[in-house]
Amino acid sequence: MSVPLGRLYGVGVGPGDPELLTLKAVRLLREVPVIAYPAPEHGDSFARAIAADWIGGHQREIAIRFPMRPGPLPIAIYDAAAAALAAELDRGHDVVLLCQGDPFFYGSFINVFTRLAGRYPIEIVPGVCSLTACAAAAALPLVSRDETIAVIPATLDEAELARRLSDADAAAIVKLGRHVAKVRRVLDRLGLIDGAVYIEHATLADQRVAPLACIAPEEAPYFSMALVTRNLPGCSVFGAP
Amino acid sequence: MSVPLGRLYGVGVGPGDPELLTLKAVRLLREVPVIAYPAPEHGDSFARAIAADWIGGHQREIAIRFPMRPGPLPIAIYDAAAAALAAELDRGHDVVLLCQGDPFFYGSFINVFTRLAGRYPIEIVPGVCSLTACAAAAALPLVSRDETIAVIPATLDEAELARRLSDADAAAIVKLGRHVAKVRRVLDRLGLIDGAVYIEHATLADQRVAPLACIAPEEAPYFSMALVTRNLPGCSVFGAP
Repeated sequence: MSVPLGRLYGVGVGPGDPELLTLKAVRLLREVPVIAYPAPEHGDSFARAIAADWIGGHQREIAIRFPMRPGPLPIAIYDAAAAALAAELDRGHDVVLLCQGDPFFYGSFINVFTRLAGRYPIEIVPGVCSLTACAAAAALPLVSRDETIAVIPATLDEAELARRLSDADAAAIVKLGRHVAKVRRVLDRLGLIDGAVYIEHATLADQRVAPLACIAPEEAPYFSMALVTRNLPGCSVFGAP
Repeated sequence: MSVPLGRLYGVGVGPGDPELLTLKAVRLLREVPVIAYPAPEHGDSFARAIAADWIGGHQREIAIRFPMRPGPLPIAIYDAAAAALAAELDRGHDVVLLCQGDPFFYGSFINVFTRLAGRYPIEIVPGVCSLTACAAAAALPLVSRDETIAVIPATLDEAELARRLSDADAAAIVKLGRHVAKVRRVLDRLGLIDGAVYIEHATLADQRVAPLACIAPEEAPYFSMALVTRNLPGCSVFGAP
């Protein structure tokens, strides 16, 4: 006798402050029997830490271990993660997969989603993404009216970064990490460095907001961001008294 | 004797589903004595409706009436809104200003914020923005790895839309409303129409997801969006079985 397939929920848990969980995330965390989350090879999961208040002893937990290193991960790692979740779904268990920020905004969940989509019922629960969390932390309006914004990974090469930044009304440079020196150089050349704000650990106790021009290359963690705006001078924490 | 100034909270209430409120939004809604929200000239506020479960009879409410019409509003309207909030803050009252989606992502709050920043303590509480809510609704991953995404208002002219879309890995075309015919024309010419997904009323009971190619120009409400991706074929609700 076959059981109905379980449902996979890709749940965004927001940028870090546990209070930025949505009510829906909290409800699902209480309801499902299995909770999965990405974790480093050794040590604790940041996504789990954000949601920890709502994970009880009655739930089974699955830590999906991802090696933390630059560049794309081996395909086998995502295959194994998808297989581990599929095993639960096949037994009819609903699974919440916790995703830092939002599942579809640079989430490693995407690699799992593409492997399971179409085979299982999947629901995405959006979360507060790093883009709006960093803007809030910096008190820096992102876009209004007819303005455009470009989200640009700092991992791009210098010429491509320059090309995309030179054409943007506003830009968010994500995955800043080891790329601070390059990004500073590009913004400097474009005359945009003075409007660039650096944010790390947005919404956490050790949140830091500073002019990007003051950040040394070795300082930035992987999940840091620079926001660059042209049209809203005087609105940042530096511009206002 | 002077009282300390009140604190203004710009609180994102998410795209529409009341369950996508954050825990922080709910806490603030219970704590502050004054709750303000944008509203049309006649009728109910959508932002208030999203948060209605958490607004009690003991709080004073301020509806900020904005005429609903295309194009920029008269400056006097924002001046009056800022003055109404300032009057509360001057008396030492903390105020939550509800913002649909996220306060700094195309929010009318930005116009109030720029008038009050520096004069009063202001805290921004980010919310789930329409970008990630629409991606979740369409089951369409936005960006991963080294991909960029451009957020582009449909209000731009045809040449500018074409220029920005032709250069994007992925794009979200916001404020679609009356601009469907123009946007369809541009995407058609760029060979991108088949990958364009239309979303309206994301996360609400009447949510609708459809190929943009099937949407008639007169159908789209103001708060609809098109998502265009090149790199993730087969992941949308249309591509998956």
